[in-house]
Amino acid sequence: MRQRGAHHQPLPIFTTSTRSYIQLERSSGVPLYRQIYQSLRDAIVSGELAEGLRLPTERSLARELGVNRTTVMNAYNELASEGLIEGHVGRGTLVKRNYARMEDDAFEHETPPWLFGLASGEELALGTDAHVLSELTAMGERKEVISLAQAAPAPELLPAELIRTVMEEGLSGERQSALGYCPVEGLQSLRRGIAAHMRKRGVPVDLQHILILSGSTQGIGLISRLLLSPGDEVVVEVPTYLGAIQAFRALGARVIGVPADSEGMRVDLLESILARRSPRLIYTLPTFQNPTGAVMSPERRRRLLLLARRYQIPVLEDDPYSEIYFEGPEPQPLKAQDRHGHVLYLSTFSKTLAPGLRVAWMAGPEQMIERLSLHKQVFDLNTNALGQWAVSEILRRDLFTGHLEELRQHYKRKRDLSLQAIQDYWPPEIRVNRPKGGFHLWCRLPGDIRSRMLLREAAQEYVAFVIGEPFHVDGGGQHSFRLSFAPLRDELLIEGIRRIGDALQRIIARRTPREALEDARIERLPMV
Amino acid sequence: MRQRGAHHQPLPIFTTSTRSYIQLERSSGVPLYRQIYQSLRDAIVSGELAEGLRLPTERSLARELGVNRTTVMNAYNELASEGLIEGHVGRGTLVKRNYARMEDDAFEHETPPWLFGLASGEELALGTDAHVLSELTAMGERKEVISLAQAAPAPELLPAELIRTVMEEGLSGERQSALGYCPVEGLQSLRRGIAAHMRKRGVPVDLQHILILSGSTQGIGLISRLLLSPGDEVVVEVPTYLGAIQAFRALGARVIGVPADSEGMRVDLLESILARRSPRLIYTLPTFQNPTGAVMSPERRRRLLLLARRYQIPVLEDDPYSEIYFEGPEPQPLKAQDRHGHVLYLSTFSKTLAPGLRVAWMAGPEQMIERLSLHKQVFDLNTNALGQWAVSEILRRDLFTGHLEELRQHYKRKRDLSLQAIQDYWPPEIRVNRPKGGFHLWCRLPGDIRSRMLLREAAQEYVAFVIGEPFHVDGGGQHSFRLSFAPLRDELLIEGIRRIGDALQRIIARRTPREALEDARIERLPMV
Repeated sequence: MRQRGAHHQPLPIFTTSTRSYIQLERSSGVPLYRQIYQSLRDAIVSGELAEGLRLPTERSLARELGVNRTTVMNAYNELASEGLIEGHVGRGTLVKRNYARMEDDAFEHETPPWLFGLASGEELALGTDAHVLSELTAMGERKEVISLAQAAPAPELLPAELIRTVMEEGLSGERQSALGYCPVEGLQSLRRGIAAHMRKRGVPVDLQHILILSGSTQGIGLISRLLLSPGDEVVVEVPTYLGAIQAFRALGARVIGVPADSEGMRVDLLESILARRSPRLIYTLPTFQNPTGAVMSPERRRRLLLLARRYQIPVLEDDPYSEIYFEGPEPQPLKAQDRHGHVLYLSTFSKTLAPGLRVAWMAGPEQMIERLSLHKQVFDLNTNALGQWAVSEILRRDLFTGHLEELRQHYKRKRDLSLQAIQDYWPPEIRVNRPKGGFHLWCRLPGDIRSRMLLREAAQEYVAFVIGEPFHVDGGGQHSFRLSFAPLRDELLIEGIRRIGDALQRIIARRTPREALEDARIERLPMV
Repeated sequence: MRQRGAHHQPLPIFTTSTRSYIQLERSSGVPLYRQIYQSLRDAIVSGELAEGLRLPTERSLARELGVNRTTVMNAYNELASEGLIEGHVGRGTLVKRNYARMEDDAFEHETPPWLFGLASGEELALGTDAHVLSELTAMGERKEVISLAQAAPAPELLPAELIRTVMEEGLSGERQSALGYCPVEGLQSLRRGIAAHMRKRGVPVDLQHILILSGSTQGIGLISRLLLSPGDEVVVEVPTYLGAIQAFRALGARVIGVPADSEGMRVDLLESILARRSPRLIYTLPTFQNPTGAVMSPERRRRLLLLARRYQIPVLEDDPYSEIYFEGPEPQPLKAQDRHGHVLYLSTFSKTLAPGLRVAWMAGPEQMIERLSLHKQVFDLNTNALGQWAVSEILRRDLFTGHLEELRQHYKRKRDLSLQAIQDYWPPEIRVNRPKGGFHLWCRLPGDIRSRMLLREAAQEYVAFVIGEPFHVDGGGQHSFRLSFAPLRDELLIEGIRRIGDALQRIIARRTPREALEDARIERLPMV
């Protein structure tokens, strides 16, 4: 084990290994701490280790490199004294600043000092996982990687033909609606169409209860700005959508996790939190949860609404997946049972039509919609009319229903293919859910294998997925990971799962009793 | 004069008259203060006077109604004691809360109390003019009004055919680029295309210096978040784009105005501000300024860049109009002379192609672009790919150049038509600039006529424009107003200007010596 550090290759950019930048030469005469310091310094200064990146703990890096913990400590102290890394309570050691890239930017004849004196509060608040989402997004352009990371729709289901058709037939005649400025609240025709669609699903809303958004993420941000002050608490189920955690934290909110299981948020545990603390918002994905795929049970939904009413706390229902169901009756939104106006409902056409349209919406009490519009317009005058108009036309011509039918069949097949491939290629000790809808498989490794280790191994074969930690709020998720089966073609999906299986087999094969023992000591968190 | 208040009609929603809600019946026996109180209370409770609206000062309402100032004071005190209005230092008296609409929302069976306890800091910071922009935007849907208010492109120039063509020919083959998730920084093809376009205009940038935005407003917000902390100062020229003032203020910045004249920002006055204070950002529209149409002189540009360097302050150049020039050589962006990386450049396709695309961009130092991307992705995963892809195709096929040619001719004709109509229909004492590009005429009334009064008069004939105050940061602009000649068809443009002329003639005709005297006492601010 002590020698393993030496022959590792630098990893592809989509994982953030620190150790791969360190090549120890034990016979060089240079103290080991100095070598570690120098390697990391070079990687930080050259920009290979980006600002905000989290370094491993001293203990874990020491173990990986086969050196004493004090050796790593000395190296880290040196880096910290140069201002290149910084410790943060609760978030570990982060790469702090990247001097070199600022100096050798060809565009710059000199570096304006105001770039160094940036307002740091919000930047820090963005946290160490802020890069995760953008890396996931950028990976779409890296062709050689088989990515099961991104919750994107299948390219072949992106409705290019529907959009071409509505544009060909309607764009010239409606150029002002489709290409002009539109109201901050959104195109009236789209708001009306969405309200009608929601009524069919049991939610009694009308145009004035709908606010069009440029993606759900914008909705989470707007609601946070309106309802939360820095330091306020937000309750989320754990694990939960990592983008929501980021947005809440970036605005200075404290995120409190409530464990979730196969029936969704443990509402029984929620109650004790509400009784003891004063959170300002409850965020939940009740249907085909991201990442677990779980559906909140009817009993828990009732109880959640009861608690929201009793403690007078708004519930933000994030619902991107409920129309992509594979079996049984169509699930209703939580909002359909909301008799007292406590649920703010958020959904999007990014999964059901196309992410590139950037059309999402919120449904809520009219006065809330008005206030949110006021906030929205200051920073985002309006959502792109072209996408709104296209969606509105697709709804108006009743083309959406058939498209959804097609989606459901397609993704059901993908789910079944994935589960079959997992059965074929993975060791039996990996537990995987069987979601009844949505895009995700949630996988749990045995307690002695970390998903980060698996990702590193899999990355060498150019397979990517998302490890469990970013979906957690207090350090859990080390043994979980998420696969998105939606975007890949059949053969790549199967091949990706096969390669992960290979990586798993290799890790299991080189398990030593000592490793197993050490890892077994690591705190095991409740898994769903 | 005393009777004039009685026979006014309620105004269309696009102006915010308070007095129009008040019908005094002097013979009714009900005290006048009580009548004023009751009228305003009804208007607030019914939602006609929206939350956040600024009420006139006691003195000015008293003058308008022909009552004593103490009468208005008593009415205001009554409203304040009921929590319906609230005084704010520096921002006047604002409508505070709208109870009735909260109670009679059919969707609500009861009103969740959390709606009343909203985090108020940012909401207040949005300020009293926050509604102006959304009203301008919403007006696009009110057909009966001739609006010279909105800086929107002419509907007949919205490139529906270009977009249809690129979609027909390319969308199916490029569905992943056009409809999938794209990188936070924007589609590579578009960033490359924009960089090439900017290089032609003298700005040496490449793909990595370009960040795609969902509108310039997003860029102003992102930069503010990155560079400013609450309380920090931003310098703007006065008058300036009202959306920028709003965005800066909403983020807690203090906005300092530097007067501008026909050669743009008075850079000589800027220097003394920089010497005495420590602003963090200078915001300017150097070319075809909004609202004045002025172009900053070469000498001032040089000096501004020199000051930015000497005082190490970034300059945010907002440049939506410079490609829409009517005469002379094509103006270069300020950024073209920026040898030391102090200029952050912002532009948009909203004026040159279509606002409904929501595609704008920023050009700046690479590390700045990286940081801004990080911020952007937390709240806006990415800009709509469909619009980006369409623009990228239009650039790639070199369809943009010809379109710009057409725009320039079209808007030049509109400018000339407008100036001719003004000469034909307006009294000669109104001063109007003759812009060499852009969308706007900036009009200055004689010192005894306020633009608010003119707007009220014009509104009765269903003509709208934007009064000068929202473009100012410290109370100026009462005698100015902006006309946007771009969006209207010829006959409506001329008719709108004619109606404003009628309104002006009426106001001038009923000028009394006493009024002239009173208004003449009002502080007169430097006009450009």
